[in-house]
Amino acid sequence: MKKLVIGVDIGGINTAFGLVDEKGDLYAESVISTKKYPYIDDYPAYVADLCSAMRAMTESVSFEFELIGIGIGAPNANYHKGTVETPANLWKFRPEETNCDESRRIFPLADDVSKCFGGVKTLITNDANAATIGEMVYGNAKGMKDFIMITLGTGLGSGFVANGEMIYGHDGFAGEFGHIIVERNGRECGCGRRGCLEAYVSATGIKRTAFDLMAKMSAPSRLRGIAFEDFDSSMISAAAEAGDPIALEAFRYTGELLGHALADAVTITSPEAIFLFGGLSKAGKLLFDPTRWYMEENMLSVFKNKVKLLPSGIQGKNAAILGSSALIWQQQQ
Amino acid sequence: MKKLVIGVDIGGINTAFGLVDEKGDLYAESVISTKKYPYIDDYPAYVADLCSAMRAMTESVSFEFELIGIGIGAPNANYHKGTVETPANLWKFRPEETNCDESRRIFPLADDVSKCFGGVKTLITNDANAATIGEMVYGNAKGMKDFIMITLGTGLGSGFVANGEMIYGHDGFAGEFGHIIVERNGRECGCGRRGCLEAYVSATGIKRTAFDLMAKMSAPSRLRGIAFEDFDSSMISAAAEAGDPIALEAFRYTGELLGHALADAVTITSPEAIFLFGGLSKAGKLLFDPTRWYMEENMLSVFKNKVKLLPSGIQGKNAAILGSSALIWQQQQ
Repeated sequence: MKKLVIGVDIGGINTAFGLVDEKGDLYAESVISTKKYPYIDDYPAYVADLCSAMRAMTESVSFEFELIGIGIGAPNANYHKGTVETPANLWKFRPEETNCDESRRIFPLADDVSKCFGGVKTLITNDANAATIGEMVYGNAKGMKDFIMITLGTGLGSGFVANGEMIYGHDGFAGEFGHIIVERNGRECGCGRRGCLEAYVSATGIKRTAFDLMAKMSAPSRLRGIAFEDFDSSMISAAAEAGDPIALEAFRYTGELLGHALADAVTITSPEAIFLFGGLSKAGKLLFDPTRWYMEENMLSVFKNKVKLLPSGIQGKNAAILGSSALIWQQQQ
Repeated sequence: MKKLVIGVDIGGINTAFGLVDEKGDLYAESVISTKKYPYIDDYPAYVADLCSAMRAMTESVSFEFELIGIGIGAPNANYHKGTVETPANLWKFRPEETNCDESRRIFPLADDVSKCFGGVKTLITNDANAATIGEMVYGNAKGMKDFIMITLGTGLGSGFVANGEMIYGHDGFAGEFGHIIVERNGRECGCGRRGCLEAYVSATGIKRTAFDLMAKMSAPSRLRGIAFEDFDSSMISAAAEAGDPIALEAFRYTGELLGHALADAVTITSPEAIFLFGGLSKAGKLLFDPTRWYMEENMLSVFKNKVKLLPSGIQGKNAAILGSSALIWQQQQ
């Protein structure tokens, strides 16, 4: 009988999920709102509704199959414990709550979902780690034992693989490369600190850079006509393609900071390749060229011209679902 | 029959080696000069003399034993290939050499030594990685799956362990944490670049800091009476113990830079503990207190107050020999 896995991608707005085989083919997919369940006491209803939607999806498939597991990608997920712990944008305290003890916001999501499906094996990790395993199982990292995945979305996520294994770390939260400090007392970051890499290198980071450059440079730019609120990082790509000097400088600067940071990361894990994944990486040469240049320029000589900087092989709308399902498939290999 | 391993520690001045059992007890030890063989064409004689000295040591033991392997710690060692590659201070080109193609300075040391001992299993890695495995086999990291070792000698070496395995990286040279850049265009480093962590945090780094502070501060200090050439980092420890303001500030600044760097390293591998090893770490509280403070102060909240900062458990004169022998013992477990 065909074996399938449910891959689940939990975002702040929606939760998408699909039935995936070992080759990464998708047999059914569906989505529920995450935003509809904003508060801590909404969590049980979220789990119940997610499970019935997943159940309905499995019943929509016209052939018989064996469900061998469920893989979940979610913010602040702890792989070792199967929990989502104190997520910034999910299941928050209600504004009127007086007991805001964060230890109450540890959600045993893997167990709760597994129970709805007769105890089937359920694994959870953060979305960047899920994408990393997706790259290893379906993408361009097949057969690689040592690589780094950088996911460039609203923030900067990362996954480090060494000796063929994902580095989850002692507490299950490893791979927060977006939060190395690249500028002491630099830009405010969502984590409450200052100068984190993701405050510069991410969709929101490059937007902040563009606004900084509009202040610093006097060159004309089509970006000067757009308000901060209306601004989207894809506008910088479009402007750069048209030769806009502010937009080009924004990409150069982004590549400089990312290249420096990657040269440092290479000294630690000495990867075969580094993959860039997610929205901002679709800017292609605009981002890859300066990143590669600054990475090589700053590399310790023993690592120079050895480390490949490559686009992810699992880009596309179902990448996150595939990545989550790969959590299970990886263990079948 | 008792099983023993030869652990070999190759330094720029001497090569020390000893016969070690699985508990870390030393049954014999000896040493030859490394400095006596400075040039590339001295390498064959070095190997021959090292092997006969090792042979003599094994024959000096009064009981019968089985030699199960040889573990070697050496600069620029490639674990995967068993080679020492383009070491800065070993087997250099003669000054009159015209063909300085560095690919000629790749020495297959593990194979060469193994051949002298009938093909016995011989593994090689750099001294910091050897110390890391020593910590895992004999020291305070027993049973830990995820930890970081920082060795503070003339330079700063490191070893990263994740999922219970040493991270050697794709090319076998991982763990060069001393060469992350902590200050753009900062101090010149022996690697040819500027601003590397080891130019600040190491025995030579803190010496440079003391001289920088003697220029910046006007406080009186007993260190002002010592010339750069005569200066040794242990003088800073002694002065700091006596309350010398320059020496105290030198330790605070060293701890600040190391603490910042470790907070960044934690975001990547999320270790259970970080161990400090080697000469400078013997300064104890003087170094540990500011390092711990700045590490916690700069830590991403999810990692705060979770990561232990500890002294190595294999300090002492034979630590390097034990570490090298652990390369073999680790694989017996």
